[in-house]
Amino acid sequence: MGKVLIKGGRIVTAVDDYVADILIEHGKIEAIGRQLTVEDAEHHDAAGLLVMPGGVDVHVHMETPMGNGIETCDSFESGTRSAAFGGTTTVIDFAQQFKGESPKQALDRRLAAAEPQCCIDYGFHVILTDVTPAALAELPDLINQEGVSSFKLYMAYPGVLMVDDADIYRTMRKVGGHGGMVNLHAENGVVIQALIEEALEAGNTSPKFHQLTRPQLMEGEATHRVIRIAELAEVPVYIVHLSAKEALDAVVEARDRGIHAFAETCPHYLFLDKTEYDRPEFEAAKYVMTPPLRDHKCQHALWRGLQFDDLQIVATDHCPFCFNENARGLLKSKQYGKDNFNKIPNGAPGVELRLSLLYDGGVVAGKININRFVQLTATAPAKMFGLFPQKGTIAIGSDADIVLFDPDERHTLSASTHHSNVDYSLFEGRQVQGKVKKVFLRGELIVDQEQWLGQAGMGEYIKRSASGRVLTG
Amino acid sequence: MGKVLIKGGRIVTAVDDYVADILIEHGKIEAIGRQLTVEDAEHHDAAGLLVMPGGVDVHVHMETPMGNGIETCDSFESGTRSAAFGGTTTVIDFAQQFKGESPKQALDRRLAAAEPQCCIDYGFHVILTDVTPAALAELPDLINQEGVSSFKLYMAYPGVLMVDDADIYRTMRKVGGHGGMVNLHAENGVVIQALIEEALEAGNTSPKFHQLTRPQLMEGEATHRVIRIAELAEVPVYIVHLSAKEALDAVVEARDRGIHAFAETCPHYLFLDKTEYDRPEFEAAKYVMTPPLRDHKCQHALWRGLQFDDLQIVATDHCPFCFNENARGLLKSKQYGKDNFNKIPNGAPGVELRLSLLYDGGVVAGKININRFVQLTATAPAKMFGLFPQKGTIAIGSDADIVLFDPDERHTLSASTHHSNVDYSLFEGRQVQGKVKKVFLRGELIVDQEQWLGQAGMGEYIKRSASGRVLTG
Amino acid sequence: MGKVLIKGGRIVTAVDDYVADILIEHGKIEAIGRQLTVEDAEHHDAAGLLVMPGGVDVHVHMETPMGNGIETCDSFESGTRSAAFGGTTTVIDFAQQFKGESPKQALDRRLAAAEPQCCIDYGFHVILTDVTPAALAELPDLINQEGVSSFKLYMAYPGVLMVDDADIYRTMRKVGGHGGMVNLHAENGVVIQALIEEALEAGNTSPKFHQLTRPQLMEGEATHRVIRIAELAEVPVYIVHLSAKEALDAVVEARDRGIHAFAETCPHYLFLDKTEYDRPEFEAAKYVMTPPLRDHKCQHALWRGLQFDDLQIVATDHCPFCFNENARGLLKSKQYGKDNFNKIPNGAPGVELRLSLLYDGGVVAGKININRFVQLTATAPAKMFGLFPQKGTIAIGSDADIVLFDPDERHTLSASTHHSNVDYSLFEGRQVQGKVKKVFLRGELIVDQEQWLGQAGMGEYIKRSASGRVLTG
Amino acid sequence: MGKVLIKGGRIVTAVDDYVADILIEHGKIEAIGRQLTVEDAEHHDAAGLLVMPGGVDVHVHMETPMGNGIETCDSFESGTRSAAFGGTTTVIDFAQQFKGESPKQALDRRLAAAEPQCCIDYGFHVILTDVTPAALAELPDLINQEGVSSFKLYMAYPGVLMVDDADIYRTMRKVGGHGGMVNLHAENGVVIQALIEEALEAGNTSPKFHQLTRPQLMEGEATHRVIRIAELAEVPVYIVHLSAKEALDAVVEARDRGIHAFAETCPHYLFLDKTEYDRPEFEAAKYVMTPPLRDHKCQHALWRGLQFDDLQIVATDHCPFCFNENARGLLKSKQYGKDNFNKIPNGAPGVELRLSLLYDGGVVAGKININRFVQLTATAPAKMFGLFPQKGTIAIGSDADIVLFDPDERHTLSASTHHSNVDYSLFEGRQVQGKVKKVFLRGELIVDQEQWLGQAGMGEYIKRSASGRVLTG
Repeated sequence: MGKVLIKGGRIVTAVDDYVADILIEHGKIEAIGRQLTVEDAEHHDAAGLLVMPGGVDVHVHMETPMGNGIETCDSFESGTRSAAFGGTTTVIDFAQQFKGESPKQALDRRLAAAEPQCCIDYGFHVILTDVTPAALAELPDLINQEGVSSFKLYMAYPGVLMVDDADIYRTMRKVGGHGGMVNLHAENGVVIQALIEEALEAGNTSPKFHQLTRPQLMEGEATHRVIRIAELAEVPVYIVHLSAKEALDAVVEARDRGIHAFAETCPHYLFLDKTEYDRPEFEAAKYVMTPPLRDHKCQHALWRGLQFDDLQIVATDHCPFCFNENARGLLKSKQYGKDNFNKIPNGAPGVELRLSLLYDGGVVAGKININRFVQLTATAPAKMFGLFPQKGTIAIGSDADIVLFDPDERHTLSASTHHSNVDYSLFEGRQVQGKVKKVFLRGELIVDQEQWLGQAGMGEYIKRSASGRVLTG
Repeated sequence: MGKVLIKGGRIVTAVDDYVADILIEHGKIEAIGRQLTVEDAEHHDAAGLLVMPGGVDVHVHMETPMGNGIETCDSFESGTRSAAFGGTTTVIDFAQQFKGESPKQALDRRLAAAEPQCCIDYGFHVILTDVTPAALAELPDLINQEGVSSFKLYMAYPGVLMVDDADIYRTMRKVGGHGGMVNLHAENGVVIQALIEEALEAGNTSPKFHQLTRPQLMEGEATHRVIRIAELAEVPVYIVHLSAKEALDAVVEARDRGIHAFAETCPHYLFLDKTEYDRPEFEAAKYVMTPPLRDHKCQHALWRGLQFDDLQIVATDHCPFCFNENARGLLKSKQYGKDNFNKIPNGAPGVELRLSLLYDGGVVAGKININRFVQLTATAPAKMFGLFPQKGTIAIGSDADIVLFDPDERHTLSASTHHSNVDYSLFEGRQVQGKVKKVFLRGELIVDQEQWLGQAGMGEYIKRSASGRVLTG
Repeated sequence: MGKVLIKGGRIVTAVDDYVADILIEHGKIEAIGRQLTVEDAEHHDAAGLLVMPGGVDVHVHMETPMGNGIETCDSFESGTRSAAFGGTTTVIDFAQQFKGESPKQALDRRLAAAEPQCCIDYGFHVILTDVTPAALAELPDLINQEGVSSFKLYMAYPGVLMVDDADIYRTMRKVGGHGGMVNLHAENGVVIQALIEEALEAGNTSPKFHQLTRPQLMEGEATHRVIRIAELAEVPVYIVHLSAKEALDAVVEARDRGIHAFAETCPHYLFLDKTEYDRPEFEAAKYVMTPPLRDHKCQHALWRGLQFDDLQIVATDHCPFCFNENARGLLKSKQYGKDNFNKIPNGAPGVELRLSLLYDGGVVAGKININRFVQLTATAPAKMFGLFPQKGTIAIGSDADIVLFDPDERHTLSASTHHSNVDYSLFEGRQVQGKVKKVFLRGELIVDQEQWLGQAGMGEYIKRSASGRVLTG
Repeated sequence: MGKVLIKGGRIVTAVDDYVADILIEHGKIEAIGRQLTVEDAEHHDAAGLLVMPGGVDVHVHMETPMGNGIETCDSFESGTRSAAFGGTTTVIDFAQQFKGESPKQALDRRLAAAEPQCCIDYGFHVILTDVTPAALAELPDLINQEGVSSFKLYMAYPGVLMVDDADIYRTMRKVGGHGGMVNLHAENGVVIQALIEEALEAGNTSPKFHQLTRPQLMEGEATHRVIRIAELAEVPVYIVHLSAKEALDAVVEARDRGIHAFAETCPHYLFLDKTEYDRPEFEAAKYVMTPPLRDHKCQHALWRGLQFDDLQIVATDHCPFCFNENARGLLKSKQYGKDNFNKIPNGAPGVELRLSLLYDGGVVAGKININRFVQLTATAPAKMFGLFPQKGTIAIGSDADIVLFDPDERHTLSASTHHSNVDYSLFEGRQVQGKVKKVFLRGELIVDQEQWLGQAGMGEYIKRSASGRVLTG
């Protein structure tokens, strides 16, 4: 690969903001300077554009089976291409251990599926559902040999994904000393199950009962609980898709005492609220993700959390299911739960919209500054999950994963223009300011405006180093 | 000035950490890259050294009269040279309005004194002691024309420096809209005055009563109070020399509600505690600064604050008085308060030790990482007080204020080797790891090991832009 | 005085609730029992009625000069008669030290005025406005000899009533060891003064600016501050007329740490909110009291405070001024502030309505139970201010101050039926359930339905024992 | 039964404190008065003595099988006689549903055992271990017909007693509307189980590991969790044997938000700490109860909780096991766990010492006043669990359960003098001030100094009314 020179852009990192040129060689950032002159380089004019590190999205679910014959509707290929169009150059997906399977088997299965397809770089969190002594014994090797330094456990979905508090404690103890970190889906699964049964017994089957049976209190409870368990285990902990003020309160209470409890939130919790469930007919099913959309006050709390670093990361939890029964076959869509909210596939799309939404609703709206934007979307995720400094910044020696972003261009979000397989958008018709113009993956131009220049399989698996890096301490 | 090339150092900013060369031209950082080759540049080998932005110390008191014939014992020249040897390339000192004087007069007086002497770049906070309508009316011009975007008010020292809560509120309202910020010395001055009187009436005159009459509760109270006033005025607020856990609690409570209350602490609060006041004879007087050293628990709280960004800045509050009566004349030392703790000049030296102490006690001790070190000592102070991006980072276009720092070299702190005029050290005999090797001010080498290469008057006054910049929001 | 027998009532104390007869001899409760038979006693049938201890109202202002020629419009006689009709048999009024005066002189002046007039028993808090060493020296005698065990200080009204924090601290230290307690009007007076000036300069003169210039934040701030000062002085503290959630938060934070911070609230804060200030023309002036009515959320917080004993007492702060210029002379009414909200006499009537309002809005509404009702209106005030067990309960040996109360009777509150001199009611037209039927003062029937049987001067001054009695510890 | 007259004692209730005579007829309090004269009554001189309501101990375990052949060593007879000697006249024990059994069967079994034996009045909480729909359906009848208005659930002891969060929620929902309340043993059972396994795997078998494997954090966690579940279910909740500061913090946080979370603590947590586990040999096993003794700071927190009504009740959790193998047969003592701390029968004696310990360590020590003493030991328990006003106070019409207590007499606690079957005392040799002199059960003298005048079977089962009575609201 030859040299690439990005000229005259406004380079923004998590801390800096200046105009300069960037020289790329061998896919790495070789030099940054004023008026760099390189004869044999491919030139890209970035005047007037923001030049930012490629986004790192640490929470996506591509081609993921739900256990009932339903699978998320983006393949590794379509999903990562969609991510690339949105300015994301690295994703971390999940490798779920099925009952009876070893964690390593789960990883290998997913690696095999991803390798020929991924359009951008990728990693995996391993989901443990069967926390046997044998499974635990395997984890250090996963961290040290396979580059998997984060493990996800579910406190929700009893009988399917849920593990108990003892399993959480044991996993934390096992991985903590090796640079591994545990990620939690924090909701009190059994109480929610009781609420679901109550609702169904009362004949309440419409989508809005998805939200009504997953109360904010029970996300707050589980978040508080797992932080206490992490405190006992003396390890940091990471809460995925934090949505409720009550859960954020638990995180804040912990940090005020010096406990390292990290958390991500997602764009839909920042920009939408539970009034979406009042939509007529089955429309509300589009918004059936877990946790559900929350009351309006939570948005205010989440923004405060982003401003004050109580929330460190914005990820998408991209987990797309078509709304309409699609070409892939019968009943693989949201329609599966037409008569029972509890059967609606849980999840929503969004991998492509993260930067646009957060730039418009955060930076343009004056809620965060541009450095914080880069930190939330690229630098902090990379540092948190062992990808830094290869990913997540613009610095000498880092991968030349770079986004050229027009801070002024306005465009409209729509399922008709996005690149995911999914047939709807949570943000259909929303106008936003700020648009990805070009995307470089390790120095290669893969997105040029609306044009796709990359190819399936060019994404590389990234062996990650220690997760749970304490950002400032 | 010719080109300068710093080769092969480990460049550390508030976010990045990589090995590269830095090219300096016209006192600015021109390029950063691997294997930069420049023919006509002065070369400095930085292999094995940390290459960091020059320190920014936002709280120093050079040649400052105390109002009783006593003055701090460092001139602008000796004090800034001492700072430079410690790796600090910019200081912000104070211009105190005397009663009847206008703020602008105070600034001009200090500028005239500083200009021929300063060895490094500098700015001034203006201290208001006479908050008249006329004084208030002058402040917008100070901010917009004179580059003074921060104003200090005292809640302590009734009858001398103290202003009342209404003055604080009015000042906040006046400067808030113009990018100005108010800095507070937060202690309840009148209750402390009552305690001092109680102590003296009881015949308690020894230095330890300085500490006993300035309780942590009253720092906490004043901090809480002024944050509430800032909340009412809808402006950010900055607490200087925060020392007590109770004060930090007030800051934390505010941030948890989304209020922008910033604070600095000082090395002596991080590394020393009130047991120093048990020293025999008059030795304790060396530790008479305000606020006094606190109980041991406060140190733990302050470190947590630094780790979680509840404290944004480490400054020195360098305010040196000789312990022994010195050549400058009778009774200008700590001895002035030999028979009455309340007459001991309040203040302690430290401008030269900040980086060494914080590197050793913070980074080496595993309490903060190296990026946080840079953020606390350079980047955050520069951003907070309108010096960024000229100061506080290593980025293209920024002033080439650069420190080469040996992360391994051990040395011993002592009054016999420091460069301040003061005749004692709070940290006499303390061994530390990490040493400043070379210091560049705008590309000029001013410190080379123990050698002073700079000169009085080479420091420039920096007109600062808006203060109170919200770091992440 | 002969024997009195109250037959068959439902006796309610702060803890008990049972049906029995009460025998009174010599003005004291002699016996309680089932089917007491006493031949020579005056009989009162209490079947179906609540038999409760007479109310104790610890915050009233009778015939009190405001310093500008205006005086509250109830004399000791009219005011205490009004109180009696409302079921209150003891009040504590104030004796204000004027500048230059001694506290004892202030007490004597008020005692002389009250003695011939009072219709019920009474005591005084002494207000200190001039905290000289001589004044402080007098306080132990006031406590031990004169039965004044509580002292009120103002943090509001600079230049008139306000004392500084040092005066508060000194007063606390002086009276704390002798069983005296300090009561505080907690608002940040100087900031409020700045806000008032801001408003007037902007031409904002209407009554609603009374509320807008006394923000909840500044009540919260002062409450927090004085609790910290009390903590330093190691004494309990009592906050009068607490109205803002922010102030209650400060009280709660203190109790959670084991600090004895007590507080009262008033019926108008429980039942009215700041929307009253939107009334047309000058009507809003009726609601100009200090602190002003607060936002609706505060009511919820105050009720929680009453339920969980964070608020111990409900008092009235009866401080009546006629709305219309009345017979007593020119400009002695609320009309004085017609053109300037800051001149409106601050205060509102209410001494007669406390039991009716709290029974209806508290007990009937299910917010507090009947025992708590008695505790809030009689027992806790008596215990807090050194009147117990003489006052505040129904127990053998206590004064036979007894109210017979019909729990079911509904009536309408109105200035046309109340017994105060004031010409309006904050609660005009409000229907309430529960009505005072008979009132006994030391065994004498003074109120019988609408009939007044008492006389001026029959009230006795009560020398109180230690205040600040910790209720449970 | 004839009349009884208790003359001249100092009668103390939760609110009052006065000298008077009490006349008892038909086991009820008939009259209270000064100088009551009754010709045909049995006289008891109470001059100089406190006359208080008989104690109500809501947490005892008499003749309770542990499921491994071990049973608590007090029969209903010996245990309730021991209680009586300690001034307690009512206990609430437990009826545990075994797997497969219905709650009603559990109650009947225990009633049959208790009826011929109990020396004082008694009730039962029903423990649910098998929360089936059928079991839930039975609960309203238990409340309304059988007088069982409280139900205990365990969050600890997985596989034995533990139920899951859904069962807790369902039970709360079922009983909440009928005046029933759920009591919780709040510890995170599964994490504790993991810790126990860790300890045993590491060969740590001594008694001190009982404490080390039941961390305060996990009591705090469970307490927080169940309060959130109660908040969701919109019912009050009661935490038994609260011991850790972390658990109290959860209770306090709830009350500060207006959530009704009640809790009891026990004398051993107030007076002992975890240093007892450092005792040599197997002595530490005497202190193996659950939760274990905590660190010293917890005591301070618990006392604050008692003072500020964050803790409402002091109960004993009397659960005695002999230390030495006793006459009743092999291995029925603490020795069962000689080689494995996890097999030591969990529990400690104390039913007889509650009043003595709390009077001496609370009232004499100045931590609570005498009214609060009565409230904590008699009135609040009676009100909380539906026994009031029959029990828990001295008022006309209440049961004449009365204790005459010498406030000055000193005595020494010892297993050699107590009346329980158990062979050791947690407080062996402790000197205390304050001694029970006479005890009346429904007017009958059952304890006279060291003499037992009662008999087995005289205690009556009390059908309780609604539990969870909100004390003040």
